[in-house]
Amino acid sequence: MTEDQTISIIVVGASAAGLRAAARARRRLPEAKILVIDRGSFISYAGCGMPYFVSGDIQSVDKLRTTPYGLIRDVDFFREAKGLEVVTGTKVERIDRDARKVYCKSMRTGEASVYSYDKLVLATGASPIVPRGIPVDNKRITTFRSLEDAISLRKSLETGKIEKVGIIGGGLIGCELAEAFSALWGAKVALIEAAPNILPSVLDPEMALAVEAYLKSENVEIHTSCPFEDIARSGETVTIKTAQTDFEVDCAIIAVGVRPNSELAAGCGLVIGKTGGIVVDDKMVTSDPNIFAAGDCVEVRHLISGKSINLPLGSLANRQGRIIGSNLGGGNERFGSVVGSVAVKLFDMNVAATGLMETSARDAGFNVGCVWGTFTDRADYYPEAQNIHFKLVFDKQSGRLLGLQGYGKGEVVKRIDVFSALLKNEGKLEDLMDMEFAYAPPYAPAVDPLYVLACIARDAVLEEIQPLAPDSRYDERVIIDLRRPDELKSAPLPEKDILKIPFEEIRRKWEEIPKDKPLICICAKGVRAAESMRFLKEKGFSNMVYLGGGCLMKPAG
Amino acid sequence: MTEDQTISIIVVGASAAGLRAAARARRRLPEAKILVIDRGSFISYAGCGMPYFVSGDIQSVDKLRTTPYGLIRDVDFFREAKGLEVVTGTKVERIDRDARKVYCKSMRTGEASVYSYDKLVLATGASPIVPRGIPVDNKRITTFRSLEDAISLRKSLETGKIEKVGIIGGGLIGCELAEAFSALWGAKVALIEAAPNILPSVLDPEMALAVEAYLKSENVEIHTSCPFEDIARSGETVTIKTAQTDFEVDCAIIAVGVRPNSELAAGCGLVIGKTGGIVVDDKMVTSDPNIFAAGDCVEVRHLISGKSINLPLGSLANRQGRIIGSNLGGGNERFGSVVGSVAVKLFDMNVAATGLMETSARDAGFNVGCVWGTFTDRADYYPEAQNIHFKLVFDKQSGRLLGLQGYGKGEVVKRIDVFSALLKNEGKLEDLMDMEFAYAPPYAPAVDPLYVLACIARDAVLEEIQPLAPDSRYDERVIIDLRRPDELKSAPLPEKDILKIPFEEIRRKWEEIPKDKPLICICAKGVRAAESMRFLKEKGFSNMVYLGGGCLMKPAG
Repeated sequence: MTEDQTISIIVVGASAAGLRAAARARRRLPEAKILVIDRGSFISYAGCGMPYFVSGDIQSVDKLRTTPYGLIRDVDFFREAKGLEVVTGTKVERIDRDARKVYCKSMRTGEASVYSYDKLVLATGASPIVPRGIPVDNKRITTFRSLEDAISLRKSLETGKIEKVGIIGGGLIGCELAEAFSALWGAKVALIEAAPNILPSVLDPEMALAVEAYLKSENVEIHTSCPFEDIARSGETVTIKTAQTDFEVDCAIIAVGVRPNSELAAGCGLVIGKTGGIVVDDKMVTSDPNIFAAGDCVEVRHLISGKSINLPLGSLANRQGRIIGSNLGGGNERFGSVVGSVAVKLFDMNVAATGLMETSARDAGFNVGCVWGTFTDRADYYPEAQNIHFKLVFDKQSGRLLGLQGYGKGEVVKRIDVFSALLKNEGKLEDLMDMEFAYAPPYAPAVDPLYVLACIARDAVLEEIQPLAPDSRYDERVIIDLRRPDELKSAPLPEKDILKIPFEEIRRKWEEIPKDKPLICICAKGVRAAESMRFLKEKGFSNMVYLGGGCLMKPAG
Repeated sequence: MTEDQTISIIVVGASAAGLRAAARARRRLPEAKILVIDRGSFISYAGCGMPYFVSGDIQSVDKLRTTPYGLIRDVDFFREAKGLEVVTGTKVERIDRDARKVYCKSMRTGEASVYSYDKLVLATGASPIVPRGIPVDNKRITTFRSLEDAISLRKSLETGKIEKVGIIGGGLIGCELAEAFSALWGAKVALIEAAPNILPSVLDPEMALAVEAYLKSENVEIHTSCPFEDIARSGETVTIKTAQTDFEVDCAIIAVGVRPNSELAAGCGLVIGKTGGIVVDDKMVTSDPNIFAAGDCVEVRHLISGKSINLPLGSLANRQGRIIGSNLGGGNERFGSVVGSVAVKLFDMNVAATGLMETSARDAGFNVGCVWGTFTDRADYYPEAQNIHFKLVFDKQSGRLLGLQGYGKGEVVKRIDVFSALLKNEGKLEDLMDMEFAYAPPYAPAVDPLYVLACIARDAVLEEIQPLAPDSRYDERVIIDLRRPDELKSAPLPEKDILKIPFEEIRRKWEEIPKDKPLICICAKGVRAAESMRFLKEKGFSNMVYLGGGCLMKPAG
């Protein structure tokens, strides 16, 4: 064992949260001894960029650990440029909180070492969940978490060893990898998800259906409601066994989520939450006032549901790290509650969400209202305009905004970010209607989709212009298709018994509609249908709904 | 004179505000008689899209007045689809508020007509300002406001009659037109602006300089500080006389701004503000409780400065129109104060701003702080990442956010919109640091530019890490260039006597820096310079600044 050294600040984990905390503390405390300890060999790499390295969009893996001005972020860089000592390949095995010591072991030599600390920062990250008994070999059966995972997969792709891949888990990482394998390398991908839809923690089912249809159109096989049971390797072939069927693939990737690395914290008696994450207060202090924690290993509080959750995002880890660094240097910075904004690009489709989904909003006890809308992301006459589709979740009683989900080839993420800013202020529908968007035809329609969504929601609540979810069955409802003849021709509805009355003729022809039957009004985007429904209400029709988001959000088949 | 007819609601002006008000009122009051009167022949066209018709990006002018589902928005459309009567080619000449009558005249026949109203809505728009005595002929000397203007210009371009054009006014419209004439048609464009910089109501001078440099690189001639004096036409040649020089062109476009069409309102004694706009309360009611007004003809209140301003934007007109429609139908909707978000796309550059500029913030009495920053809009390793440049204006005392300006080829507008949402809530630097962005490498860096800007501002105030504006002179300051040798080679500084110490060597070589002289630290984006300055402060250096936004925001020359 090496001699015990006294260090002012020890940081465990040299990724976003840990290094940001250390660098910030260095600036505030120029004289402090600061040591960062990491068990891996690569430090400070952009894990979120790994799918783009696997896909080939990024040629060299070093791009993921290079500063914008071209320096590799390695141990030397942090020593010279940042004034930080980083020890790699070293595992912290135990923390003695009374003595304020950490006990380490070299991953290479097994040599033990011990350091004393004044303040300790845990930034131990998260690890991929691997179902019990799966023979992960990091080649044919692998997780996707470390840079080594990415390098190994890329090598296999380059040498043609992967023609068919099974991805277990249709979350953010699973979907990103489906594109990575398929787009450039042409590998056949089976995306296997236990839940009834992909991206189950991001999108409600009817929204996910559209993304699934798009991925299928890009030749990704999608298997939902397909719980994974086992994996067997035989020679070069891997068999993924599921409740539905078996998949023979060259490579199986396990992407069913991550769990916080909180064993070290638990081992020294720090309070761990129900989520498995380390519990911290808003200054990022654990149950021990001398120990901070940040990043994927902690749990955070959801602003809207009030629940503790794991939200392993690099963006949060960076912010939390900076807060710890400031507070180590005598600051009083706080990390608030989160709303959970996420985004993912799949081929040419942008998918993003923030706040609560419909289901989670109900669980949290809100009086949940939902509306849907299809829009162009720019002025509809602008040449590059693209359709985008949203679902707005709100509280019907108070009008409080609860969540927004969107997908489409156009600018979805901007709207999610703006909405997130409103969620942070506990905004209501009226705040959304009061928003000012920097408007010019290349950026937005004169009336922004978010504004229109708020109007649709208000109309649903105040005037009972009620949408039906895009994936609903119409049952016995008479369908009124309000589209023009050329629209009907290019995208006919599969249903039978449709009454076709173009929107611009409804004021003349409404008497053709049966008054005693339940109705559903349908158009391309939902606008004409809602407006027609309002007109029909004036004329005494009552049992009516319209198709939210229009035919353009209706799942095929 | 036709017989006096009693109409429940009369709307003067059939553009965004007026038609939106009428359509909304129709929905709320199905039985009401509603009449919309417009002096023009085209109604409900997207004026903001006209530059894209002139440029040729949009082939047919009808695209600007077509619904997304392909119907022309003409008088028939509004009658049939919206249940609204619209009378075109009819000028409202006088309002008798006591009798509640409007007196009209046909623009074509001169025939007079009169209508009585219960409620009146003025949506009379704005007109281009034309300096006194200018012989506007709508062909060689023209404004750019009506669809007729756009059609005439496009025709001249198509028939090759315009090879050189002078645009008087470097505001949003002037800049958009510079691109329209230049990009597709190859016309030589001289953009003539009286102020010291283009976009004077959008960007502070040092920000505008960069946009000017970019426009010049796209072969647009820029003449700033160049007050226009007169225009003379001789045969097919137009001479624009300015304080600097004369411009011989084939066509002169006057784009020096618009003024509210408030004569009709003034004529009947309604209160008009100092800006020339009609004064309305937050329900969009004028000083006569039976008369509403909306759109470019009214003045609005700036949320931050508290001042009344004209803000002729289609996005606001639409919102105001809807509010009037609701309130006509018994609603109680309100239009709040504005923050003034604007955006413009110039070739491949995105320019946008919201809130107050530095100058207007000082005028409003704030203790103004400014910081600058250059960022990639996405993860720096993501292949399509582009640089974006921002200036943040804030109050040093309270930390209140006051304004944001940005330009660059990357995603600028998203950040402006998010910032606008925070401005609406009177947000502070700490709110910006608490924002959650939907993060994935194709959309943003893990740490968003807005977050970093807030950090830079906090560091400037709390730790005196003070930036110098990008266009500042360094006077006697010793320049410390912290870039790497390959960066220096590709973009050397023009100044002499530069001390070159790469950032990663500053901790070793700082003793080479003279301690008794004022310093300026410079790097590519400002980050390394600020960090080095902090380090040098620890070492006892005091008279120091760094170049805000780095070399990438520094104007050439």
